[in-house]
Amino acid sequence: MNSVLRVGIVGAGGYTGAELVRLIHAHPRLELVWVAAAKTAGQRLGEVLPSLIGLEPYASMVLDAFEPAKAADVAAKVDVAFLALPHATSATVGAALLAAGVRVVDLSADFRLREAAVYEAAYGKHPHPELLSQAVYGLPELHRPELNGARLIAAPGCYPTSAILPLAPLLKAGLVESSGIIIDSKSGVSGAGKSPSAATHFSECSEGLRAYKIAGTHRHVPEIEQELSLAAGTSVKVVFTPHLTPMTCGIHTTAYARLKPGTTAEVAREAARNLYGRGLVTVLPEGKLPDTLWVRGSCRAMLAYAVDDHTDTLIALSVIDNLARGASAQAVQALNVALGWAEDLGLPVIATFP
Amino acid sequence: MNSVLRVGIVGAGGYTGAELVRLIHAHPRLELVWVAAAKTAGQRLGEVLPSLIGLEPYASMVLDAFEPAKAADVAAKVDVAFLALPHATSATVGAALLAAGVRVVDLSADFRLREAAVYEAAYGKHPHPELLSQAVYGLPELHRPELNGARLIAAPGCYPTSAILPLAPLLKAGLVESSGIIIDSKSGVSGAGKSPSAATHFSECSEGLRAYKIAGTHRHVPEIEQELSLAAGTSVKVVFTPHLTPMTCGIHTTAYARLKPGTTAEVAREAARNLYGRGLVTVLPEGKLPDTLWVRGSCRAMLAYAVDDHTDTLIALSVIDNLARGASAQAVQALNVALGWAEDLGLPVIATFP
Amino acid sequence: MNSVLRVGIVGAGGYTGAELVRLIHAHPRLELVWVAAAKTAGQRLGEVLPSLIGLEPYASMVLDAFEPAKAADVAAKVDVAFLALPHATSATVGAALLAAGVRVVDLSADFRLREAAVYEAAYGKHPHPELLSQAVYGLPELHRPELNGARLIAAPGCYPTSAILPLAPLLKAGLVESSGIIIDSKSGVSGAGKSPSAATHFSECSEGLRAYKIAGTHRHVPEIEQELSLAAGTSVKVVFTPHLTPMTCGIHTTAYARLKPGTTAEVAREAARNLYGRGLVTVLPEGKLPDTLWVRGSCRAMLAYAVDDHTDTLIALSVIDNLARGASAQAVQALNVALGWAEDLGLPVIATFP
Amino acid sequence: MNSVLRVGIVGAGGYTGAELVRLIHAHPRLELVWVAAAKTAGQRLGEVLPSLIGLEPYASMVLDAFEPAKAADVAAKVDVAFLALPHATSATVGAALLAAGVRVVDLSADFRLREAAVYEAAYGKHPHPELLSQAVYGLPELHRPELNGARLIAAPGCYPTSAILPLAPLLKAGLVESSGIIIDSKSGVSGAGKSPSAATHFSECSEGLRAYKIAGTHRHVPEIEQELSLAAGTSVKVVFTPHLTPMTCGIHTTAYARLKPGTTAEVAREAARNLYGRGLVTVLPEGKLPDTLWVRGSCRAMLAYAVDDHTDTLIALSVIDNLARGASAQAVQALNVALGWAEDLGLPVIATFP
Repeated sequence: MNSVLRVGIVGAGGYTGAELVRLIHAHPRLELVWVAAAKTAGQRLGEVLPSLIGLEPYASMVLDAFEPAKAADVAAKVDVAFLALPHATSATVGAALLAAGVRVVDLSADFRLREAAVYEAAYGKHPHPELLSQAVYGLPELHRPELNGARLIAAPGCYPTSAILPLAPLLKAGLVESSGIIIDSKSGVSGAGKSPSAATHFSECSEGLRAYKIAGTHRHVPEIEQELSLAAGTSVKVVFTPHLTPMTCGIHTTAYARLKPGTTAEVAREAARNLYGRGLVTVLPEGKLPDTLWVRGSCRAMLAYAVDDHTDTLIALSVIDNLARGASAQAVQALNVALGWAEDLGLPVIATFP
Repeated sequence: MNSVLRVGIVGAGGYTGAELVRLIHAHPRLELVWVAAAKTAGQRLGEVLPSLIGLEPYASMVLDAFEPAKAADVAAKVDVAFLALPHATSATVGAALLAAGVRVVDLSADFRLREAAVYEAAYGKHPHPELLSQAVYGLPELHRPELNGARLIAAPGCYPTSAILPLAPLLKAGLVESSGIIIDSKSGVSGAGKSPSAATHFSECSEGLRAYKIAGTHRHVPEIEQELSLAAGTSVKVVFTPHLTPMTCGIHTTAYARLKPGTTAEVAREAARNLYGRGLVTVLPEGKLPDTLWVRGSCRAMLAYAVDDHTDTLIALSVIDNLARGASAQAVQALNVALGWAEDLGLPVIATFP
Repeated sequence: MNSVLRVGIVGAGGYTGAELVRLIHAHPRLELVWVAAAKTAGQRLGEVLPSLIGLEPYASMVLDAFEPAKAADVAAKVDVAFLALPHATSATVGAALLAAGVRVVDLSADFRLREAAVYEAAYGKHPHPELLSQAVYGLPELHRPELNGARLIAAPGCYPTSAILPLAPLLKAGLVESSGIIIDSKSGVSGAGKSPSAATHFSECSEGLRAYKIAGTHRHVPEIEQELSLAAGTSVKVVFTPHLTPMTCGIHTTAYARLKPGTTAEVAREAARNLYGRGLVTVLPEGKLPDTLWVRGSCRAMLAYAVDDHTDTLIALSVIDNLARGASAQAVQALNVALGWAEDLGLPVIATFP
Repeated sequence: MNSVLRVGIVGAGGYTGAELVRLIHAHPRLELVWVAAAKTAGQRLGEVLPSLIGLEPYASMVLDAFEPAKAADVAAKVDVAFLALPHATSATVGAALLAAGVRVVDLSADFRLREAAVYEAAYGKHPHPELLSQAVYGLPELHRPELNGARLIAAPGCYPTSAILPLAPLLKAGLVESSGIIIDSKSGVSGAGKSPSAATHFSECSEGLRAYKIAGTHRHVPEIEQELSLAAGTSVKVVFTPHLTPMTCGIHTTAYARLKPGTTAEVAREAARNLYGRGLVTVLPEGKLPDTLWVRGSCRAMLAYAVDDHTDTLIALSVIDNLARGASAQAVQALNVALGWAEDLGLPVIATFP
């Protein structure tokens, strides 16, 4: 029976919320029935997300103000909740909904790290450290078995997705040294969210490109290191440099690792193909380098590998759409796996090109 | 019975072709089975449209070289053909396929104008003027009855769609003078297609904004005047100024018309709502002005109206995505109507925001 | 003797302030000696304008907090003050400096309108209506005689500059009807200033294009009408529609007017050439249409004219850089005229292309 | 006596040519008297560079067709020639002009490499290898003594400038290991020049970001390695990854090197300050990271340094304008040094911000 699950979004007024509405609308087995938000509670969704004006039932939905005490009411309405909330808030909301019986897909950082201490060093005190052991890191290609049946899914961060996908196969297969890895990422501005700021002001972003939170200070570093260490079977430390670039969507990551003897670019490609198969991660053939435009609006990732012989360096590249594969679409993909559905059910696999 | 129609695209390697692949993939009753192109014949679709790399069955489809003599072979394979070809070529291909029994949706200008003489003044000799009387102008909201069952559909131009949608209700209802209409349109660069040129070179488009083909010299003028004259019931002449603006997708049209006594902005909105209902054309409420971003990647159009009291001018605004509502998505919408399906079947109604 | 004047800027931390610093640095007879600001008072200029980091003497200048009571102190330091301030504040500061003997070039709207009543309808109560009769509207090509020796210069608005330059010659020469004029302007985002807002958020500007403050509600309408009425010798009312477009700098204006008998495009060009000569306003030859990129960073304006015969409409086009010719560079140009210097002394006449 | 030198540009129709015209116009001791080009010979400069329309004497200058046989005629007209030509052609033209007594500043790669064999591996046969020993690499901060009086100056490449400036002080001072250096550069599209191509087509650049010519295949690698080896006093090999990013101007380089014991970020900053002084290269203080927008249109470079303690990596960042500091402005700066003038004479030091 093709039953349809009732879905709610808490934090529906931001960019990942907007993308979730688009994805759920296109999904044959999900139906959006409830939306909530903090700052915009009481407004209609069409006021907050103007792309929905005139489109029912979404435009007229009134954003609810979620309170943990109302979790049971929410649980009567929805089977699954996506949380697109600031960290700490998200854990509190998620814990309440989970306890009330709602399946939770959290897009914040709150359930991504296995160790409470690691979380607290980066984000401060965790409201519900006892839930960390139940949460599953929602990068489906690497956590399919644990995702099966999961009731608390931590959707990965955008930068970590772009960094882990190309590097995990190399570390799993022992093709590169596990030390000395450098990850240089270039992100579109939508990753900074919907709130205006000097850093995201059009006149200073267009024709402006800059690094920020460098040298181990970005909060995504522990998340990347956790997953790469898991792949490598040993502790991995990385240099991670995020850059803000003048486009709205997309992350391009260029990663550098020291070659182990015998590794060629084709060996690297083969390792990635073996790990990812013919699903939503595509390994480009020799001579092709990926472009963020090729995955815009899609849940696909593209990877490429090359070897710099004169320095014995392996170069691994990836592109994703930060709001789709880097957030909302991957969250739905992980839910599909948790529910035993086809992994790409209802997901946009073809980019809006150009 | 929910049968699926087999679809072919001639001219699949350009931007409207790329968008058609995306739309047909998402459509529950259309299946892409055959692609053809001129310059890129013999190549795989994944080579020509890199967003399809790794995505089967599309990536491996080999672009055929269409020749009219092969029309019967094509007819054995496909029920419907979309033509994304240069004018004149399109009419020749379309005539052959139509004669072989294929339903044709033509995205060129070849079947849009009712009068061969008007066509020839703008485009040169028409290869098949005898077909003009069978062709239906595929702007569904204005031609639903004729589209029903149509076998030769002329998908409207992008600028005409953006100009006709806001003005037709006003002229139909007699709310503005039919003379003195000015249409000032701002288009994204993708409207110029995929072939590189000085006019579409990134370094001279970014931070560059310019008008082109002004003062009645753009070929879309006769198409706009034909449809507005039809709406008005009298001959309408317009000033039309296209501008190239530094974005990839979207057309924003600002049109100016002289008020007739008694017309208010609300009267104009009401006329548009009456004509378009609650479908894919949304009339914004007072105080809201449309933004191209709100319809990016979607087949929806948004309209707004205002009155400048101190000059007795009605201002009508519209936004569409030039490749979606202005080309490929509207072509599919028209086909849906022709086949008696739900008008928005399989179409993206929610924009990729942001 | 080539003496050098000492210059101050009040409101130095914004975009027109930044542009003034660049222009004054390059000017052989102006020297920046004092800067002030409200919100950023006490900070170093290099902190507020990062393009000045490391560049002395500017980087280390501390932004003063101007108070009218200190006008005499300022007057001891500077000969000329540029005011880049919000309206109303600007008039108060300007009045105090003027009274203390400082020559004032005001970039706000406070001294642009001749009639206090017109000002008050748009901006609210004027702090110093008694000064309006002394102020000279600083569009040099149209007000050279009055500018000569002027001690209070009102630098024009960016949109008015782009609208008045192409239309004034037509109205002065009686080539078009003075009623029914439509002005459709497209501006870069820097016109909205340096304060972040939802309207200027990168992710919603890139790929977004929209009209705003339409139908006579933009405050630049009275300014445009004042100057065009002056040129026409009769009251002129206009429709004015500003649009925000995804670029940082530049305004492109497309204006429409009804032809009087006998007017051709060449007659229009001749009228403009007669008025502007071979100075900083260039009238393009037939067949050339202007591009905002061609004047980026320069104080030049480019104009073009065309006639749409089938509707008897004259189309006038202009491009300027909104921060240069539309604000700071034109302010310096007006000062040059006031001081009897060469009109383009020290000004950038060649755009940064591309 | 402040005599003025007569200047010619060969290859004046491209982007570096356009920038040279702007710079020479603003320079008090240079006067542009002659322009030449290959494809556009016979056209007026105003036709080829529309930003010059209406601006004399430049607009009416007719582009000459240079032939080596005419070198003596050119030498009668000009004291200095800037060459903005494709490689190999440039060496031929430069050799002829040099022999005729003209001082040559070459913006191509032809005279940058000290070893003919290294040149030939990257670019093919060198037309005049005998001149390599006379040529001076025109990065003024590193080659001031040799530049003094130089008659053949090789203006550095844009990527090499952005890579050498931040790394040379570290290698000179022995603060990092000379092996394992990784250079990840992000360039604006204007670096690809004025000829349209699929790679520079607006619709596929905006929202598209991609690496190209990776893994040691970019021709700037030998140039970078030559200069860094010189600084280090030992052979240096680097990984260099160029990326095309959606902006017109600017290069942002992020370089990674292995720390030697005792090196801190402040030690690195101090080394750079010692080498560069208070000239056109600014070392940002702790906590500031550079942005390409801060140097747009200027000949300044900005550098920053940080240490990633948990991986013992030094991160060095730089921003330049690729057409200004990365090409034309640095060429003029080198000429200033060669002539014994103030290094920044006539150069734009303040960016057009925003």
